[in-house]
Amino acid sequence: MKTRNTLLAHAKIVSATGVMALCIGAGALVTPLVSQAQDFASTQRQPIDSVVAVVNEGVIMRSELDGRVAQIQQQAQAQGGSLPARSALEAQVLERMIMDEIQMQLARRSGYSSLMTQNAGLPLLITTGEPAGVGPELVLMLASQGNLPEQTVAIGDVDMLRQRAAELALDVTLVEARPGEPVKASAGKLPVWPVALKEPAMPGVLNPANAEYVLATLELAVNACMAGQAAAIVTAPLHKGVIIEGGYPDFTGHTEWLRDACGVDEVVMMLATDAALHAQAPDWQGSGDLRVALVTTHLPLRHVADAITFDRVTRISRLLAADLKRQFGIASPRIAVCGLNPHAGEDGHLGREELDTIIPALEALRADGLKIEGPLPADTLFTPRHLAGVDAVLAMYHDQGLAVLKYAGFGQAANITLGLPLVRTSVDHGTALDLAGKGVADPGSLRIALSLARRLATQRANAAC
Amino acid sequence: MKTRNTLLAHAKIVSATGVMALCIGAGALVTPLVSQAQDFASTQRQPIDSVVAVVNEGVIMRSELDGRVAQIQQQAQAQGGSLPARSALEAQVLERMIMDEIQMQLARRSGYSSLMTQNAGLPLLITTGEPAGVGPELVLMLASQGNLPEQTVAIGDVDMLRQRAAELALDVTLVEARPGEPVKASAGKLPVWPVALKEPAMPGVLNPANAEYVLATLELAVNACMAGQAAAIVTAPLHKGVIIEGGYPDFTGHTEWLRDACGVDEVVMMLATDAALHAQAPDWQGSGDLRVALVTTHLPLRHVADAITFDRVTRISRLLAADLKRQFGIASPRIAVCGLNPHAGEDGHLGREELDTIIPALEALRADGLKIEGPLPADTLFTPRHLAGVDAVLAMYHDQGLAVLKYAGFGQAANITLGLPLVRTSVDHGTALDLAGKGVADPGSLRIALSLARRLATQRANAAC
Repeated sequence: MKTRNTLLAHAKIVSATGVMALCIGAGALVTPLVSQAQDFASTQRQPIDSVVAVVNEGVIMRSELDGRVAQIQQQAQAQGGSLPARSALEAQVLERMIMDEIQMQLARRSGYSSLMTQNAGLPLLITTGEPAGVGPELVLMLASQGNLPEQTVAIGDVDMLRQRAAELALDVTLVEARPGEPVKASAGKLPVWPVALKEPAMPGVLNPANAEYVLATLELAVNACMAGQAAAIVTAPLHKGVIIEGGYPDFTGHTEWLRDACGVDEVVMMLATDAALHAQAPDWQGSGDLRVALVTTHLPLRHVADAITFDRVTRISRLLAADLKRQFGIASPRIAVCGLNPHAGEDGHLGREELDTIIPALEALRADGLKIEGPLPADTLFTPRHLAGVDAVLAMYHDQGLAVLKYAGFGQAANITLGLPLVRTSVDHGTALDLAGKGVADPGSLRIALSLARRLATQRANAAC
Repeated sequence: MKTRNTLLAHAKIVSATGVMALCIGAGALVTPLVSQAQDFASTQRQPIDSVVAVVNEGVIMRSELDGRVAQIQQQAQAQGGSLPARSALEAQVLERMIMDEIQMQLARRSGYSSLMTQNAGLPLLITTGEPAGVGPELVLMLASQGNLPEQTVAIGDVDMLRQRAAELALDVTLVEARPGEPVKASAGKLPVWPVALKEPAMPGVLNPANAEYVLATLELAVNACMAGQAAAIVTAPLHKGVIIEGGYPDFTGHTEWLRDACGVDEVVMMLATDAALHAQAPDWQGSGDLRVALVTTHLPLRHVADAITFDRVTRISRLLAADLKRQFGIASPRIAVCGLNPHAGEDGHLGREELDTIIPALEALRADGLKIEGPLPADTLFTPRHLAGVDAVLAMYHDQGLAVLKYAGFGQAANITLGLPLVRTSVDHGTALDLAGKGVADPGSLRIALSLARRLATQRANAAC
C-alpha cells in the first residue's frame, strides 16, 4: 500500500465533464459522453466508447475497463474461482488501471514533457563510448557510408574522432555543434557535440583516466534529453571494468547509470532484433521483432535464484507491459515468461521457484488484466508454437534470454532501456578491444539501435500527444 | 592417478611387430612398418605414416602423435611457456593418448563389441515412451507417412498403439516381432516389440501404474543393444514426475537411467540440429550441424554454480571431444565453451567461477592437446564470428545452451547421449500432454533423432571396424 499512497500523492485524478480532445491511437471512436469516474457500475452498456476515468491528462476508456474485467472473469471461470459482484469488481479493476496510468505518467513526465511533444525534429544522440573500443569507429563508418539518420549527433572528443577517421581512411568531416543548434548529418558529414578526453586514447588500450570522459558524454546526453534538445540517446559500448578502476567503484553499467541519472527506481533491459531480419523467415518467427526483456541483468549466476522475488517479477512485468504499449504502440501486449529452472522446474522436481514465486506473481498480473503466459521452459518457449503472437519474452536472467536473441538477430540486435523518462537504445555488443582501430567491426547493431531509437521516440511522442 | 591406474588395470598395451590390417578412416595410407611403442623418440621422420602404439585392438599413429605434439608446442610458444625436451614431451603426450584410447575402448566395449561390427543391418529401436504423451502417435504418424527408416522397430504396448492409430485414423498395420527376428518397416507397416501396459492409457492422463511399463521398454531396448540385436536406441519422451510417483523416487531422467543401466560413470547430454536445416542459411551458420553439449543438465538453477568444478568441466570436455571423434568422425574437434556468468564474468566483476575454475580447467585441456576456446560470453558465442569452425558448443547449464539450440533447430533438433557403450538419440521435446491424442504434434524431432541415430551407429561401427 505504500507504493499506492506514494503514487496517489503525485497525481490528481479528475473526473471531467466537458468534451475532450483525445489521442489514443489510430481510428479510435470517442464520444463526448464523459462519465463520472465512479459511474462504472452502470448496467446500461454504452453503444460507443466513453471515458470512465480521467487521470490528469490521461483517460481510461469504458472499452478498456470492460476488456480487463471480461478477461479476469474468464480466468476466474477457467480456474473455478469466485469473484466479487460486477460493480465491486469493476471498482477494483478501475483502481488498478488508474494506478498503472499514474505510474506511466510519472515515468513519462518527471519534468521532461517537452521531449514528448517536440522530439520529432530533434536530434538522435550517439554517445561514442569507450574511446579505446570500437564505438568511435562504428559511428564514423556509418557517417562515411551515409548510413546515419539526418538528425544525428555524435558526442565525444573531436580530435580523437578525427584521428580515428584518418587512421581508417574514412572520409568524414566533423562539424562541431552545441545543444540547441540545428544539425544535419549526411554522407561524409558528422555533427559532433564535443567532450574532451582527459588523456589521448589508443585503440585497444584502456585508460582509467578517461572513465570520467565516458561518463561526461552520457551526462551531456541525458541533460540534453531532459532539456528537450534531443529525441533519444543511442549508446556505443563502454567498458565497465575501466570505469570502476577510474574511480567509480559502484558503477555497474549504462543501464543502471541511466536509471540513477533519471531518478527512477527501476528500469528494464530489453533486446530486440530488427523486423526486417525476421521477414527473411516468415514461416518461423512470424512478422515483427523478437523482443527479450530480463528480470535480472548483470548478476553472477549464483545470485540469480535469490533475486527472483514476487515483487521483482511483478514490477518488471508491469514496466515491460507499459512500455510495450507506450513505446511500441502495442495496445494489449502479450508477454511470455520463462521459468527459472530447467523445464520451468517440472512441477517442483527441478526447483521450487516457479511454484513458490513465479506462478503466484504471474497469477497476480493476470488478475490485473495483463496478458501473461508462463512460466514456460526457456528451451521450448523459443519455438514457433509458443512464440506465435507473443510481443515480448521475459527471461529470468541474462544468458537465458540473450543467447537466443543474439543468435536470432544474426548479430544485428539492439538494446532498449524501458522505464526511463527518455528513449535510450544501445548496441548489443561490447567494446571489442581486439577489433578496435582496425575498421573491421560490424556497425549493424548501431544501425539497428539508431533506427529503433527514432521509431520509439516517434511512437512515444504520439502516445503522449 | 587413481583413474589412470584403474584404466591401466583394464587394458593391455601391446607393441606389435607384425603387419596389421588397420581401418582408421577412408583413404588412410598405412605402412606395415610398425614401430615399438617406446620408439617415439626417433629423430628420423617417417616418410609415410606408422604405428607408434598398439593398445589392445586399437593403434595410435605417428601422424596423430606428431599433430598433438605440434599443437602443444604452438600453444606453449604463443603463451611464452617452456616445454620439456622433444623426447620427454612425446612420451608424456603418447601416454595421454594411450589413456584416451583405453578409456574409449572401455566405453565402446563393455561387452558389447558385437554392436560395433554388426550393426549395419540391425534395427533402430524406438521406445515409444510415456503412453499418455505424444510419443506413440509420433511414431505412428511417421509409420503411416512412410517416413521411418526400413529397419525400425517400435517398443510398446501393441493394443495401445493400435487404438491410438485407430483414434487418429492413421493407416498403420502393426507387426509383432521379437528381438533377433528380421524386420522391415514400410509405409503403413510398423514392426513392434511388444511390452504390455499395466493399466490402459488415455492420452493426456498420466497414470503412475504405468511407470514400470515405461522403464520396461527401455530395459528391453538396452538389453537388445547389449546383445547385438539392435543398432541404436531412439527414445520418445517420458514423464519424469509420473515415473517418480510410480515408485522410482530416484529417477532423474532418461539420460541418467541409461548411464546407470550401461554401468558408465559419466555421460554427456548433447543436442544437435540437422545439417539440412542449416544449409538454408549458409552465410550464417556455415555448413554442418549446430551441436550444444551441457556440463550440467537437470539441476535447479541455484545449484548450478557449485556444480561447476575443475573435475567436472575437464571430464565432460574430454568425453565430448572423444565422442565427436568416434561418433561424428571429426578428427580433431574444436569446442567453444561458455562462461557461467553473464559476459563470462567480465574479469571477475560479474562472478569469479571463470577465473577460479573454468579458465584453469580449459587451460589444462589445451595443454593436453584439445582444441578448446573460451570461456566465452554465452550471448555472443552464438554469433557468426565465434561459431565459425566450431564443432560443438559446451554450455555450463541447460537453458544457457538449449534455448538457442532449439530456436536454431526450428523445432527440429535431436538429443544425443555421449559416453555410452551404445548409440542413443532422443527427441528434443517433452510428452506434450496437452497435444496428446490429437494428431497435431510435430514428428520432426523424431525424424531427426532417427536419421541421426543411423548416422552415428554407422560412424561408430566404422570407427571401431
